Amino acid sequence: MSASLATSEDPSAAEQAAFVTAVAQRLATFMAEKRTFLAEISPESLVLVDSIRDLVTGGKRMRAILCYWGWRGAGGADSSEAIVTAGAALELFQAAALIHDDIIDRSDTRRGGPSVHRRFSALHAQNGWALDEERFGNAAAILTGDLCLSFSEEMFANLGNTASSHARWVFNTMRTEVMAGQYLDILEEVSGPGKPHETAVARAAAIIRYKSAKYSSEHPLVLGGALAGAPQKLLNGYSAFALPLGEAFQLRDDVLGVFGDPAKTGKPAGDDLREGKRTVLIGLTIEAAGKADRDFVDSNLGRSDMSEADIERICAIIFSSQALARTEEMIDSLSGSAFSALAELPIANDVSYALSLLGQGAVSRTA
Amino acid sequence: MSASLATSEDPSAAEQAAFVTAVAQRLATFMAEKRTFLAEISPESLVLVDSIRDLVTGGKRMRAILCYWGWRGAGGADSSEAIVTAGAALELFQAAALIHDDIIDRSDTRRGGPSVHRRFSALHAQNGWALDEERFGNAAAILTGDLCLSFSEEMFANLGNTASSHARWVFNTMRTEVMAGQYLDILEEVSGPGKPHETAVARAAAIIRYKSAKYSSEHPLVLGGALAGAPQKLLNGYSAFALPLGEAFQLRDDVLGVFGDPAKTGKPAGDDLREGKRTVLIGLTIEAAGKADRDFVDSNLGRSDMSEADIERICAIIFSSQALARTEEMIDSLSGSAFSALAELPIANDVSYALSLLGQGAVSRTA
Repeated sequence: MSASLATSEDPSAAEQAAFVTAVAQRLATFMAEKRTFLAEISPESLVLVDSIRDLVTGGKRMRAILCYWGWRGAGGADSSEAIVTAGAALELFQAAALIHDDIIDRSDTRRGGPSVHRRFSALHAQNGWALDEERFGNAAAILTGDLCLSFSEEMFANLGNTASSHARWVFNTMRTEVMAGQYLDILEEVSGPGKPHETAVARAAAIIRYKSAKYSSEHPLVLGGALAGAPQKLLNGYSAFALPLGEAFQLRDDVLGVFGDPAKTGKPAGDDLREGKRTVLIGLTIEAAGKADRDFVDSNLGRSDMSEADIERICAIIFSSQALARTEEMIDSLSGSAFSALAELPIANDVSYALSLLGQGAVSRTA
Repeated sequence: MSASLATSEDPSAAEQAAFVTAVAQRLATFMAEKRTFLAEISPESLVLVDSIRDLVTGGKRMRAILCYWGWRGAGGADSSEAIVTAGAALELFQAAALIHDDIIDRSDTRRGGPSVHRRFSALHAQNGWALDEERFGNAAAILTGDLCLSFSEEMFANLGNTASSHARWVFNTMRTEVMAGQYLDILEEVSGPGKPHETAVARAAAIIRYKSAKYSSEHPLVLGGALAGAPQKLLNGYSAFALPLGEAFQLRDDVLGVFGDPAKTGKPAGDDLREGKRTVLIGLTIEAAGKADRDFVDSNLGRSDMSEADIERICAIIFSSQALARTEEMIDSLSGSAFSALAELPIANDVSYALSLLGQGAVSRTA
């Protein structure tokens, strides 16, 4: 769902770019206000707000953009303050999720810089502070994520009466579902090996639905529609498009996490295997592989010290079990459902075109 | 600020008890709804909501009660749904803060049960799951705290138009300040030893102001007033009462954390010293002690493996440096300011009486 796919040949490109700029400006203004506020508490607390500001300065603004087109498809005006506010709230929520995700996944980098907990542990090391630098980094990043989560809500609350009760419901539901989905994800990492391999695919599919597809695709699009007062029928159509699209996006992400070109993805080869992510791709592998191969995958997945040879052997098992081919088939099937639903949406051509570009980018990307 | 101090002789006791019951019922209903919602995602995700429910079932409801009397003092009706909603939102926010605090402080217990991260790591151990139980416990508790933070906001947003822009501002400010204050607290633990000992008291005073006094005392009372549409003059009077009271409360807490009776506080003797909390009590010690004693305190504070003899030596230094006596003087002085301000508040006698009981409980308690 790369925003860069909207080129100058696309009539909606300029409009989308203007929206992205407006969201960036809103976030910059908001963070500058927070910086002034925190400076009065203590200059030493500014690193909290600077960490958030740096994080929300980057990113593809995928969720905000989907929210925008959901709004436009439902007749929302292109220069409305409300949709910029909603987009900024989504971006702040995503930043909060990333800060805490990176602690949970022990990720060192994010959006081209150090992850927030690494930034704080580096600050500790540079200053030669007492006690443990990793523990300080994690503690400070927990608090920074909490602050960012509060900022997201503060931004959303700026909508006031503009947010219908349905829009508020979507925002609340999105938060609950993504946190439950993230929990199921970390639960699967530890409990998956002991569960029946016949249900591994179903378990992984539930995780990507809540953690990714609903959160990153369906809810942002529906939120935009709900803010513009869309009838339930249109919102259902949005879901029929965005849910399978989000699932296809995540399946593509899972494939890239194992087989992607590190030069393009920015992640080391096999990173997802060392992290122990039990994706649909892994579920299909475990379901189809023989016992020896399955046991090898189960006992090595999540070992951060896995050797290159072990990584290669797991990749070979994924390949020979047909799991990769079946995942690609699933991506095709889900994309087909998404684009069929898109074709039936009663929305303006330029909105439909913008959504189709986002959709194509989501499933055919290489990074 | 023990709610139990409001006895049957107090005319406001029944009213306060009815409010506390209403908040508990509201929380129970809300959590039951969330349980139904999460059950549809996955029965395995129910532990998230059960952890939150168990946490919000306990506690003294101190912040909710202050909010209530702030509301009543400003003319709010005693049977209003709005103040129950605000009280429930404060309780959910406090639960979220506790969940994340306990990860940061590595606390094993909370409100008579295991802390949330310990609950999840025990679940991991009981089931013999793969990978690391402590890491799983922390990750799951980060997500549970995030969910609880979102629930708090969802509850507050239920106020809709009932919440004036000023009430919303207080709620937002409270969140930002407490997170900044908590950061300054963990920063002081690691950077305090390298900073001038002459400013240790000032630094500790800033931390308790933002982390405790404003969050736990001033903002809840002012929030209640703002919800009832109190004029700014009354809100200023609330601050003049609740801010020094909250500071005195925290100073008392710091004294109990070192010198309290473990049988009454429920915390092991010297627990705060092993945690490395750099309180005003410690600041006064460092300011007044000779170099050898100061270095001993600086180099041992925060060592989780400190011996009983080391703990006793630090206690002796706190005592001989007059830091304990000076802290008690500060508590007296702050209490004096608070009760003077209370006497001048233009509020009904029963509200004033309820606040004075809360205030007396806050500063003279032994647990």
